[in-house]
Amino acid sequence: MPTFESCRRSVYGFIMAGGVGTRLWPRSRKATPKQFLDLIGPRTMLQEAHRRLQPLIPAERILISTGREHVSLVRDQLSAAGAEKVLAEPDGRGTAPAIGLGALQVRARDPDGIMVVVTADHYIADVPAFQRALRAAVEVAASGRLVTLGIEPTFPSTGYGYIQRGERLGSVEGLDVYHVERFTEKPDPAAAQAFLDSGAYSWNSGMFVWRASTILAEFERQMPALYAQLREIEAALGTEDEGTVLERVWAGVAKETIDYGIMEHAAGVAVLPVQIGWNDIGSWQTLMGLLDADEEGNVVTGDAVTLDTHDTLIYSPDRLVATIGLEGLIVVDTGDALLICRKEASQRVREVVDALRAQGREDLL
Amino acid sequence: MPTFESCRRSVYGFIMAGGVGTRLWPRSRKATPKQFLDLIGPRTMLQEAHRRLQPLIPAERILISTGREHVSLVRDQLSAAGAEKVLAEPDGRGTAPAIGLGALQVRARDPDGIMVVVTADHYIADVPAFQRALRAAVEVAASGRLVTLGIEPTFPSTGYGYIQRGERLGSVEGLDVYHVERFTEKPDPAAAQAFLDSGAYSWNSGMFVWRASTILAEFERQMPALYAQLREIEAALGTEDEGTVLERVWAGVAKETIDYGIMEHAAGVAVLPVQIGWNDIGSWQTLMGLLDADEEGNVVTGDAVTLDTHDTLIYSPDRLVATIGLEGLIVVDTGDALLICRKEASQRVREVVDALRAQGREDLL
Repeated sequence: MPTFESCRRSVYGFIMAGGVGTRLWPRSRKATPKQFLDLIGPRTMLQEAHRRLQPLIPAERILISTGREHVSLVRDQLSAAGAEKVLAEPDGRGTAPAIGLGALQVRARDPDGIMVVVTADHYIADVPAFQRALRAAVEVAASGRLVTLGIEPTFPSTGYGYIQRGERLGSVEGLDVYHVERFTEKPDPAAAQAFLDSGAYSWNSGMFVWRASTILAEFERQMPALYAQLREIEAALGTEDEGTVLERVWAGVAKETIDYGIMEHAAGVAVLPVQIGWNDIGSWQTLMGLLDADEEGNVVTGDAVTLDTHDTLIYSPDRLVATIGLEGLIVVDTGDALLICRKEASQRVREVVDALRAQGREDLL
Repeated sequence: MPTFESCRRSVYGFIMAGGVGTRLWPRSRKATPKQFLDLIGPRTMLQEAHRRLQPLIPAERILISTGREHVSLVRDQLSAAGAEKVLAEPDGRGTAPAIGLGALQVRARDPDGIMVVVTADHYIADVPAFQRALRAAVEVAASGRLVTLGIEPTFPSTGYGYIQRGERLGSVEGLDVYHVERFTEKPDPAAAQAFLDSGAYSWNSGMFVWRASTILAEFERQMPALYAQLREIEAALGTEDEGTVLERVWAGVAKETIDYGIMEHAAGVAVLPVQIGWNDIGSWQTLMGLLDADEEGNVVTGDAVTLDTHDTLIYSPDRLVATIGLEGLIVVDTGDALLICRKEASQRVREVVDALRAQGREDLL
């Protein structure tokens, strides 16, 4: 098996920063989705995602995929890092077209290019473990496998995809690698519990490593229509027609995820179960759990007077907040909107956003 | 006994609008205390206080006492009502000096003047009953008594003064009038319970009716130092020195309430127990009880999306508030400060204001 060092110069980062999540409203907005916010620490999630790749991949080989409307935000946030390789999607068509477009770009730069696909909006607590996992995944991918990073499930989530491990293929960089038996999209509660109990499943992290040529071969085999569209775009890369061709072709691209479109029926998929402190920050409650609380269990950002208040998150950078007698609440105060919700109900923030959309309150989305 | 009609032309209103309450922070502020806010309905509390006097007393015989810094606010709020008789205190010295100053003004206008002293920051639900009570009180006061309006206690409050009723003096306008046995300032809880149980006590409403000459005689007898100061001011009324004399004399005036300073030891005090739906709006919880709630028990002013939220007051005129899973909360969102507190803890708002003062946050007081 090739070592990481032997293929280091062919490794490309591909950061997917196209998400438009609504679960951290009112901080996350259409104009500034989660990946562009400094939710934990002084750097934005995109900046963190970029930073933790760099010991392995220099900035000039890191591509960032985002929606056209967020290109300048990406450039602003990564300018100090020297990153300029932003792939702008005319609009979001899911992860399959986004990754296909990225794979073309990597192959154009290096026919042997290995593509490390990571998300910009997930938190990783143990960065050294993450980097070790990527080295291992690159080594496995170099031999022609599609590699997915699997997360150890900690509860019977019905919100994630699951990966069933099959035969153990060996050990790389001290990490076991398994053949993937099966991908399963978001299961029902009973199935989720069974998966958790069996010990044979990982959560699908949405992070993948593969040769650009390998994944493009899977696109050709499994998604021929999309592949043809990608080829048409590829032919125009670097020409003066690049923008207009992308625009025209993209309008006909069908929405699809990489999981449904490719992974579920791909050949030679391997999973690398990793322990990296992964968290997708799917709610204010989850985010609160990642932040340092004071001795009353409160997480306070901004100016606050708290009386008899416990286990409460207060985010109010611009205005004083006074609280009396609160327990287990989330308070998020932005310039034009205020959220107050019980911690355990914070996944319902999405319903607020839906209600605002239904009311035509585009200014608040 | 004289009728109201027979002395109508000698009746003067005296609205005390000098309060600087902190209990409805962050809506009430030093710059705009409670009496200047539209807490219930479209008019401010001062406007309501002025309006409910007018069927009995024309605007030109209504005087308003307030702090110097609030004179323009009073004029603005009452300009449509034609009220211009604002007595400006250089600073707040309690109700005794304020009422003394008012009594001088009334006596200067009419030696037989009867002075109806009312508060600007209390709510009165039953205005016709209030007006009937005032008519009765004027008739009693015309015969030389100091009349106080007594409120029927509904719980053993330790925050109000109590008035023990003595001998029944008779009935006026269908209302019983009693000799006052004793004024008692804020009692301890056991005493408050005993007062409530006895059925012989009224709360002190802070509303009084008397001849200016009668109350000034009591000032002369019981507070001779203050009376001398008032006389000095009186001598300058209408001269070009009025302002400077008031300023100089006022600096030496001791703080005192009319209850401690006069009423507790006054002769010939009568109490008129009234049922007028009186409420001093001593907390957000109390205010909420006076407002119309929707079918979920919520009182919402402004723009809100409420999911699974009950029994909650939301005041946010300028920004959207989204709530999820709240029960029994007070949410008050102003331009520069936000209060979130449990209903039952809303009397602790005062502590927030104290904390802000201790922090030197004058901008938020």
